[in-house]
Amino acid sequence: MTASLSPDMFDVACPSTAMPFQIGDKWTAMVVLCLEHGPRRFSELRVPLRTISPKVLSETLRAMERDGLVIRHAYDENPPRVEYSLTPLGRSLLTLVDAARAWCAEHMDDLLAARAAFTAGLN
Amino acid sequence: MTASLSPDMFDVACPSTAMPFQIGDKWTAMVVLCLEHGPRRFSELRVPLRTISPKVLSETLRAMERDGLVIRHAYDENPPRVEYSLTPLGRSLLTLVDAARAWCAEHMDDLLAARAAFTAGLN
Repeated sequence: MTASLSPDMFDVACPSTAMPFQIGDKWTAMVVLCLEHGPRRFSELRVPLRTISPKVLSETLRAMERDGLVIRHAYDENPPRVEYSLTPLGRSLLTLVDAARAWCAEHMDDLLAARAAFTAGLN
Repeated sequence: MTASLSPDMFDVACPSTAMPFQIGDKWTAMVVLCLEHGPRRFSELRVPLRTISPKVLSETLRAMERDGLVIRHAYDENPPRVEYSLTPLGRSLLTLVDAARAWCAEHMDDLLAARAAFTAGLN
């Protein structure tokens, strides 16, 4: 059993709309990170992805399943248990996610400062 | 003077909507690549970005200028000359673009095959 996902896994203050980098749709990179250390249930994924609606999480996982990034396992238990895990293809995205995170860690302040200066110059 | 940009710089058949990776908006990564080897005029950028409308190219360049990725140079000439070039911050995105291209070169066929198999399974 892998450790629980934390609600603090992703920074609330992260200016994600400013990040000049996106893997898949808005949530794909975060789902990849959530699944890095093993399979997760739908309800587990909702913990760190606090603001995602169940509908959008379903759609995100479905699109990732379609693209061969995620496998859905339905266990015949009572109550039913469904888990999601990364395929090797999905796992290969981790290098891109890491590259994006490294870029943000190094350059995001510069981008936000440029944006603030540009906006100030318009006023 | 840098070499001309070719209309064949980007593959028409590239399944860009399938690519699970995006830098900025749809066009930002391609603009970064177009500016890799030196400043370019607006009209030069339209050559490889064949399907972009002037309006969307203007908006893309404006957003990139706002974020400190691109500098706009207006020369006081007749006729007026305007060129765009990468800032060091914009140039730093080249490593991410290269990582994305490498991922696609290695894995895009797998993703498209998975998508085709998934769609076939639905029929």
